[in-house]
Amino acid sequence: MLINCVAYQNGQKLGDIASTDIHDYLRRPDCFVWVALKDPLPSEISQLAREFDLHELAVEDAQHGHQRPKLDEYGDMLFCVMKTLQLDDEGYLNEGEVDVFVGANYVLSIRNGTRKGFQNVRDRCEREPHLLQHGAGFVFYALMDAVVDRYFSVMHQLEDELEALEERLFSRNGQARQNIQDLYALKRKLVMVSHALVPLHEATARLHGGRVPRVCGGLQDYYRDVDDHLARIIRNLESQRDMLATAIQVNLAMISLDDSSVSKKLAAWAALFAVPTMIAGIYGMNFEHMPELKSVTGYPTTLLIMAVLDGVLWWRFKQSGWL
Amino acid sequence: MLINCVAYQNGQKLGDIASTDIHDYLRRPDCFVWVALKDPLPSEISQLAREFDLHELAVEDAQHGHQRPKLDEYGDMLFCVMKTLQLDDEGYLNEGEVDVFVGANYVLSIRNGTRKGFQNVRDRCEREPHLLQHGAGFVFYALMDAVVDRYFSVMHQLEDELEALEERLFSRNGQARQNIQDLYALKRKLVMVSHALVPLHEATARLHGGRVPRVCGGLQDYYRDVDDHLARIIRNLESQRDMLATAIQVNLAMISLDDSSVSKKLAAWAALFAVPTMIAGIYGMNFEHMPELKSVTGYPTTLLIMAVLDGVLWWRFKQSGWL
Amino acid sequence: MLINCVAYQNGQKLGDIASTDIHDYLRRPDCFVWVALKDPLPSEISQLAREFDLHELAVEDAQHGHQRPKLDEYGDMLFCVMKTLQLDDEGYLNEGEVDVFVGANYVLSIRNGTRKGFQNVRDRCEREPHLLQHGAGFVFYALMDAVVDRYFSVMHQLEDELEALEERLFSRNGQARQNIQDLYALKRKLVMVSHALVPLHEATARLHGGRVPRVCGGLQDYYRDVDDHLARIIRNLESQRDMLATAIQVNLAMISLDDSSVSKKLAAWAALFAVPTMIAGIYGMNFEHMPELKSVTGYPTTLLIMAVLDGVLWWRFKQSGWL
Amino acid sequence: MLINCVAYQNGQKLGDIASTDIHDYLRRPDCFVWVALKDPLPSEISQLAREFDLHELAVEDAQHGHQRPKLDEYGDMLFCVMKTLQLDDEGYLNEGEVDVFVGANYVLSIRNGTRKGFQNVRDRCEREPHLLQHGAGFVFYALMDAVVDRYFSVMHQLEDELEALEERLFSRNGQARQNIQDLYALKRKLVMVSHALVPLHEATARLHGGRVPRVCGGLQDYYRDVDDHLARIIRNLESQRDMLATAIQVNLAMISLDDSSVSKKLAAWAALFAVPTMIAGIYGMNFEHMPELKSVTGYPTTLLIMAVLDGVLWWRFKQSGWL
Amino acid sequence: MLINCVAYQNGQKLGDIASTDIHDYLRRPDCFVWVALKDPLPSEISQLAREFDLHELAVEDAQHGHQRPKLDEYGDMLFCVMKTLQLDDEGYLNEGEVDVFVGANYVLSIRNGTRKGFQNVRDRCEREPHLLQHGAGFVFYALMDAVVDRYFSVMHQLEDELEALEERLFSRNGQARQNIQDLYALKRKLVMVSHALVPLHEATARLHGGRVPRVCGGLQDYYRDVDDHLARIIRNLESQRDMLATAIQVNLAMISLDDSSVSKKLAAWAALFAVPTMIAGIYGMNFEHMPELKSVTGYPTTLLIMAVLDGVLWWRFKQSGWL
Repeated sequence: MLINCVAYQNGQKLGDIASTDIHDYLRRPDCFVWVALKDPLPSEISQLAREFDLHELAVEDAQHGHQRPKLDEYGDMLFCVMKTLQLDDEGYLNEGEVDVFVGANYVLSIRNGTRKGFQNVRDRCEREPHLLQHGAGFVFYALMDAVVDRYFSVMHQLEDELEALEERLFSRNGQARQNIQDLYALKRKLVMVSHALVPLHEATARLHGGRVPRVCGGLQDYYRDVDDHLARIIRNLESQRDMLATAIQVNLAMISLDDSSVSKKLAAWAALFAVPTMIAGIYGMNFEHMPELKSVTGYPTTLLIMAVLDGVLWWRFKQSGWL
Repeated sequence: MLINCVAYQNGQKLGDIASTDIHDYLRRPDCFVWVALKDPLPSEISQLAREFDLHELAVEDAQHGHQRPKLDEYGDMLFCVMKTLQLDDEGYLNEGEVDVFVGANYVLSIRNGTRKGFQNVRDRCEREPHLLQHGAGFVFYALMDAVVDRYFSVMHQLEDELEALEERLFSRNGQARQNIQDLYALKRKLVMVSHALVPLHEATARLHGGRVPRVCGGLQDYYRDVDDHLARIIRNLESQRDMLATAIQVNLAMISLDDSSVSKKLAAWAALFAVPTMIAGIYGMNFEHMPELKSVTGYPTTLLIMAVLDGVLWWRFKQSGWL
Repeated sequence: MLINCVAYQNGQKLGDIASTDIHDYLRRPDCFVWVALKDPLPSEISQLAREFDLHELAVEDAQHGHQRPKLDEYGDMLFCVMKTLQLDDEGYLNEGEVDVFVGANYVLSIRNGTRKGFQNVRDRCEREPHLLQHGAGFVFYALMDAVVDRYFSVMHQLEDELEALEERLFSRNGQARQNIQDLYALKRKLVMVSHALVPLHEATARLHGGRVPRVCGGLQDYYRDVDDHLARIIRNLESQRDMLATAIQVNLAMISLDDSSVSKKLAAWAALFAVPTMIAGIYGMNFEHMPELKSVTGYPTTLLIMAVLDGVLWWRFKQSGWL
Repeated sequence: MLINCVAYQNGQKLGDIASTDIHDYLRRPDCFVWVALKDPLPSEISQLAREFDLHELAVEDAQHGHQRPKLDEYGDMLFCVMKTLQLDDEGYLNEGEVDVFVGANYVLSIRNGTRKGFQNVRDRCEREPHLLQHGAGFVFYALMDAVVDRYFSVMHQLEDELEALEERLFSRNGQARQNIQDLYALKRKLVMVSHALVPLHEATARLHGGRVPRVCGGLQDYYRDVDDHLARIIRNLESQRDMLATAIQVNLAMISLDDSSVSKKLAAWAALFAVPTMIAGIYGMNFEHMPELKSVTGYPTTLLIMAVLDGVLWWRFKQSGWL
Repeated sequence: MLINCVAYQNGQKLGDIASTDIHDYLRRPDCFVWVALKDPLPSEISQLAREFDLHELAVEDAQHGHQRPKLDEYGDMLFCVMKTLQLDDEGYLNEGEVDVFVGANYVLSIRNGTRKGFQNVRDRCEREPHLLQHGAGFVFYALMDAVVDRYFSVMHQLEDELEALEERLFSRNGQARQNIQDLYALKRKLVMVSHALVPLHEATARLHGGRVPRVCGGLQDYYRDVDDHLARIIRNLESQRDMLATAIQVNLAMISLDDSSVSKKLAAWAALFAVPTMIAGIYGMNFEHMPELKSVTGYPTTLLIMAVLDGVLWWRFKQSGWL
């Protein structure tokens, strides 16, 4: 679905144009066209590919989708695949894809499976004509910056999730089974995020520093800024994975500990029952000559002894933390 | 076994030729020969090696098989070893081998232990004469692309296998023993896949970018595409190994947890039996002066006390999740 | 909040100046201005940014804070972000941020959330005019050196913490639950420290050796010294993480061990009670022909046998370390 | 002990020569000398070192032995240390050492603690005069190839060992203790193999590709072949270590599982005994008014109830896999 | 404390000189001075620093001590920090420090906390005047070689320690608690050794190969030898750490195994006691109509049945390895 098709000249919006007029605008100097598609059909992409003369392999990738994030150079054209990430209300992590074709005088952005659009990127760009004068390279930067910014909020939600899990880990009403399941699910999400981020970081590293694609020329400080943001998220991600690995070990330790404390309780209670049972067993023997049995005070004394012994035991177990 | 021996000129098929005529076609300009062998005898390879003047070390490797994936340059000739992977119906992973010799005007492909052939690659090439004009280098790309494409389906099957295992991991009717065995078997398969992929990826990295072998000249975008696909599969593979390692830990935790819950049940039931047994023991003592024993209501009262105590205990254990 | 704004010429302090006069001093040769801010408002930064003509992206970073440590070059200007670390009395690790802008003739340092200031750095610099003659580059070194020096004390406190934990780990009055929690908290702190140090180390590596930013020229031995200190702390950090990982494993082993010794005790005591209970049970049977029951010495003999058997058992368990 | 001392010219064997004549042959053009020693005395090495004018540090290394595999260049001379590995009949891994000095016109090979000699290498070389014409560089290749070839068989034996262990791991008659010990022993062997292979691989990498020592000139395809073989063995080794690490974890899980199933059995049998014991206890109470006791059918009914209850329990435990 | 201060010319000892005369000897051609200090005061170092014109940062490092091993170049002067390691009689690992300043015509070595001196290095150097002619660079090599040689003996002791631990690990009289503690202590030592070795190895790598500091010129083969020794020790160290990590896991498995066997014993003995107790309970019931009770042979028969049942059980438990 075509969302926007706008021509810009010297950083100023010329106005929405029909996709059939793209051709004319591409010829004008200092002019570039920015087209945005959403969940397009392969045929829509093919049509624009002819308009912009895009490389067939890049077009194929955009049509099939499910690429890994990457930045390919085809002559002067850049083809960039980025992943968008969104946590839905049940905590599932959904992945969308944004494909961007960048040429000297055009930007074609295609988003698939991404609920939130990039209208705000367009608005911001149009509010800053002095930057938009840089042309397609700046638009590309603005899109990338927007995608990366959204990663921050995903990371923060995952950090909150880990923190909530950590608290449950150490709380005493052990929901160990649920904890394991949640730790595993979080692990899976972190792996997904890592898939989206790490290859993109490899790509952005090539947009500042040494040799830089021509359309990104003069914007190296901006691309370094994006690269920096990615580096920061990736470090957070690494730490999260590290902490998660430790949390899984800790969880195992907590289970063992719980098991151990149950063993202790079991041992303690067994002893508390075993003492009176043994004594009762002794006075239940049928020997004819058992003087205590004749005694009037035998029975209460025995009960008392049982109670005292169990009291002492109970106190000692309490002391040593077994009960 | 010789499968095909076809000569091409300017991207057009000239027709099947006898292997003894190869010599003649190699001399023609803009002409190349594409020979396909299947599970050949060493002698068959030797004969073609003389025809194409292949390097003795490469020929030896092809004759012995069981090489690791690699890309060797012998002057202008390329020798490439690739592994094919197939999951059979019992879930076993079978490995085949495809050896490709690529020269300026010939391609010799040899497949060993690979059920599915590469006829579709030949068909696709012949349908695209404008690409086939690139000559041997394009054929080599097409073969590699086909091999790599098949890895995707293997990876998807292994991903499904892991997902099925994950579900069993968290289901309550713990088949822990079977789970361990299956996790271990999956690990083994992932190691096998990694053996096939990682060295090939090292090889493809040398086919685009800086210095590129001459026969692959002008096809860098295509080889980069293959390289990209491999990178994507390898990232998936790494994630799978990572998740698998976690799954093994999780499995251990589940076993501990199961053990722990059995300990609790044991403790609870032991207590439920111990209480009436202890009380019965007390009234089984043979003291002469035990007033309760004379009472008409002694027996039912005692039974009631036993039942009430056990009821209370049972309810508390139920509360705290021990039963 | 503006803390200091001082002009220096040839290593000598000229005196405190008003922030509105900065302009004049920047024009004088051999003169540089050193401004220090603390928890400034964005507007304060903006004002100084205009004065020094700082790059907008760097200014934005300084205004938002919470950057990762980094060293960015914008033309001849350097922008450096460093983290300060402080352990408070409850053992929590607080993170502050120091942002430094360094130009040919100015240094602007901004600290956020750092309790301890850098007045001592200024004092030290003013006491060594021969070094301060190097200008802004030396001030930058002095600030960095001060930040890094404070890391040492944090690392020593964390090392002490780990040592205290290790001792508790092996002590017999196992507070296993508390230990796990503390090990996990320490892990978290080490991750935080690593976040502060590792990216800074990457930055300092670019301040000595091959190509060096112009303002740091002639001070390479000094920057290498800082780099060296960081390298040393990072090695310590790595070792700490390594030991901590082992400590967590050891903790798990100790829990298992504790559990195992409880199982042994449980088994032993159960046996000690089971023996007399079984014997008593036998003489509690109601057979009419049980000669022992008639014997006058039957009862004491039986008690003696019980005691002897339990004594022997108790001694054997003691021997084999079960009790 | 001197084994061989042979002079070659243009790839042809001239004949065995006395070690005192070496001098003369070294002066002849197109002629080289190949000397083989076995477990030599330091003095034997010293004598030949004078003859060939070897570097003192290399000679010292050869005399002391127990070097790590390496390749040192001393001017035009190469000194290479390789490890030989042999599994003896009890499965112990024995390490030998082969030191090779290679100069423009000589090869001196010294083997220590290696049972199997290299006569077959000499035979193969003499059968291929066209390759032997390359001189000392080819002999060096042939020796290295022979050493590396033997690693394959060691690796296969270790792979078999791991497979046997894996089967035992999952078999039900758990010899857990023996398994742990064998896994640990295998780990140790893999570490030993890794010590022999990895540094050698670093060395062979320098014998093909960019700059190559002069005596190895023109043989790069051959050295790449050896390098390739080593790369393959090392990949196998890595996989083995990876699988072994998993096997150790699996073993731990199996122990836990075994423990868990014992706990279940224990719980089940305890319950089976506790039920009749409790019932018997109740009818063992001495209350005067217990109507059941008077009943003629009381006793058999009670026994029946006990049996039925235990039967039901036994069946339920069987169902849930506890027995 | 000044230990030696000796001047050498052309590899020959000129004799001990007063530290105030150093000045004169430094001016003579082909002459160099070698000064050795032990646990010096900061003032002693300052004095010699003035004499040799050492860089202030290097002097500060030497005065403060506790540096990480490193090699710093200050113009033509080298400053090297090395760690010495000694295992004392209780098995504690003590760390000393050797700082060496090397200039064109002087060597200043400072050892702190190192019991064993380097007199033997001086003796060896003086016995080899042809090598000592190389001047300060050779002395530096000789010192480094001596320090590295001592690492070998430390590594061998630690290897022995690990081997002893391994044996205890698998012995049946499990001192699991002691084992864990010793494994942990060994880990700590290995980390310490790694701290001393790895940075030094980074330093020695810069003393052979490409660009080499001038004072080490012409001695590259010697420095490569030291580098090689370090590489070998570091490989051993890595293996040790690897084995140790496995040993810790193995230890955990052994504890589990021990626990498991205790569980089995507990289960078995509980069953052995439960059988007679249950039977006795049955005949302890007070039913009026229990024909067996009247029988003369009832009692002995019952005892016999108890004994037989327990015998059978005992035999079966013995069979299945539970007892």
